[in-house]
Amino acid sequence: MKAVHSLTAAVALGLVSGGAVADDALLERAQLLFKPIPESAASYLEDRNPMTPEKIELGKMLFFDPRLSASQTISCNTCHNVGMGGDDNIPSSVGHNWQRGPRNSPTIFNAVFNVAQFWDGRAEDMTEQAKGPIQAGVEMNNTPAVLEETLNSIGEYVEAFEGAFPDSSNPVSFDNTAKALEVYQATLITPDSPFDQYLKGDKDALTEQQIAGLDAFMNKGCVACHNGVNVGGQGYYPFGVINRPGADILPEGDTGRAQVTETAADEYVFRSPSLRNVALTAPYFHSGNVWSLQEAVAVMNDSQLNSLLTDEDVVNVTAFLRSLTGRQPEVVYPELPISTEATPLPDIPDYPRPTGSEG
Amino acid sequence: MKAVHSLTAAVALGLVSGGAVADDALLERAQLLFKPIPESAASYLEDRNPMTPEKIELGKMLFFDPRLSASQTISCNTCHNVGMGGDDNIPSSVGHNWQRGPRNSPTIFNAVFNVAQFWDGRAEDMTEQAKGPIQAGVEMNNTPAVLEETLNSIGEYVEAFEGAFPDSSNPVSFDNTAKALEVYQATLITPDSPFDQYLKGDKDALTEQQIAGLDAFMNKGCVACHNGVNVGGQGYYPFGVINRPGADILPEGDTGRAQVTETAADEYVFRSPSLRNVALTAPYFHSGNVWSLQEAVAVMNDSQLNSLLTDEDVVNVTAFLRSLTGRQPEVVYPELPISTEATPLPDIPDYPRPTGSEG
Repeated sequence: MKAVHSLTAAVALGLVSGGAVADDALLERAQLLFKPIPESAASYLEDRNPMTPEKIELGKMLFFDPRLSASQTISCNTCHNVGMGGDDNIPSSVGHNWQRGPRNSPTIFNAVFNVAQFWDGRAEDMTEQAKGPIQAGVEMNNTPAVLEETLNSIGEYVEAFEGAFPDSSNPVSFDNTAKALEVYQATLITPDSPFDQYLKGDKDALTEQQIAGLDAFMNKGCVACHNGVNVGGQGYYPFGVINRPGADILPEGDTGRAQVTETAADEYVFRSPSLRNVALTAPYFHSGNVWSLQEAVAVMNDSQLNSLLTDEDVVNVTAFLRSLTGRQPEVVYPELPISTEATPLPDIPDYPRPTGSEG
Repeated sequence: MKAVHSLTAAVALGLVSGGAVADDALLERAQLLFKPIPESAASYLEDRNPMTPEKIELGKMLFFDPRLSASQTISCNTCHNVGMGGDDNIPSSVGHNWQRGPRNSPTIFNAVFNVAQFWDGRAEDMTEQAKGPIQAGVEMNNTPAVLEETLNSIGEYVEAFEGAFPDSSNPVSFDNTAKALEVYQATLITPDSPFDQYLKGDKDALTEQQIAGLDAFMNKGCVACHNGVNVGGQGYYPFGVINRPGADILPEGDTGRAQVTETAADEYVFRSPSLRNVALTAPYFHSGNVWSLQEAVAVMNDSQLNSLLTDEDVVNVTAFLRSLTGRQPEVVYPELPISTEATPLPDIPDYPRPTGSEG
């Protein structure tokens, strides 16, 4: 028995040793393909829109202020909820007059690390992005002129803009609103996920199943579109390159990046989403009709990878994706300055009020 | 010149001295009629629904969770915004399918100190109150059954309810949802306003104009309906007792408390609102169509006080009301647990999605 024990121990040691070598190789390959989320995104905005405490505070007020919308009821946080992974967890957002947006609301968490913004990448950064929903008829339905009139009517906002943009000849502007929003949103990053800890060398940060999932993710094609600091969000790829998914997942009317570039080759091309915090951001895809993460992996396997992933791979990759949930940002709710008699009134379509005892 | 100076100084001293006596009398009278906001509301719920840290944490998650609504897009905070004085600053709230509520959303700040909840007092406490908007068709449009199914589908919520209601045989219930919401909302109180500091003996906490306003407020009738810890919220009074305001302010179809008591004598009777933080909660009255605080005071003067307040009184009372803005609660945004495949899907009327490049 003793000899057998020794043999078992030796074999076990050998396996562990062989496994350790394999583990090291996997980690090294992962370190080449991905990067941990940094503790600050400041270097990403440094030249163009430096992150200052004044801009962060102003941007935070603006982010939570429903007066950015014409109805004064919809804030950035409505569709990019900081308590829900930075999105709204519904197929597509509900906006002005209960209209629905055409695509699933992407998370703002770590969006600063994406190559460009929106599913089709039509905004090159978050300053440009912020100007979209404020003006979109199906979202906030506001205009730059009304927004500037609103902000100028509130003394605390005027002071905050002057403090945040001291060199600006016209500090209270739509452009500076978008800049402050970008800077605040650049604070909404989620470092220290188990995968980040793994990338920093802690091989115990992932479970065995997650390690197996990472292996399949890197060796069977997922990584081609989902790499870098955001595990995606870095480039543009055709959706349905192998098999076209059903119209509920890839609606025919939405041709993606082709609408931006006006190039036939870009039909049904989208920016790959970041998979950071993907476990928090169902439903999936730009159409927002797939609610299960594992089903989303299976859809990708079929449409993009020619079913190279086995059923077991799909389960393991799904487990790996759950390791991408990072430390969620701690947000103290801002105290918003009050409107004045000069503030434009909310623009709410005049629904008749029900009479009765409610309210 | 010296003698004149001495005389001036003596007169000045005399005035100050006489003023000090008057000031003391005013303060003493105020201390009889009002009470400062306490640092905690625990004693108000002690017997019925004790405030525990577990209930507070659970109630806070529920308060910010849009999954309380059928569409999963409307949270308590949507209409009772903790960054905007605890209300939404629009005439009446926008709810499910962009319907509008019949009355202006009251602030939840300090609501625990009111004698009853809603403009007509039909809910005797905030537990009963919380059940209203969740079910109201024009607000969250949800049902207790769907809400319980939602909460039961999310492991973190089940644990949180079990922790908050350890003696409950059925912890994850609609009743306990309302209880947790009441306890969390009882933390949303605003002590330390200038008026509270004054009530505690700091006579310099109010400006001279605010003192004059307080004097008029107490001596010309306002205090009859607006007294106690909440400077209102303690009883029921007819609106328009002297002069009936226009239908934009007092709509004929809404007879107020008569709809609760079914008594003709209660027609156009409402619970007097608390005036705490009133400078933050425009627009005013249950109809929400008066945007200026001074205009609201003038409306009250005409409709309730037979114009006993002079124009100067109206200005001074308005200044006094601004001293009722307290320290706003500091709220760290809660991290909400994610839905599972067992969670009911959001119920959003199926608006056709616009096609195009937005999103």
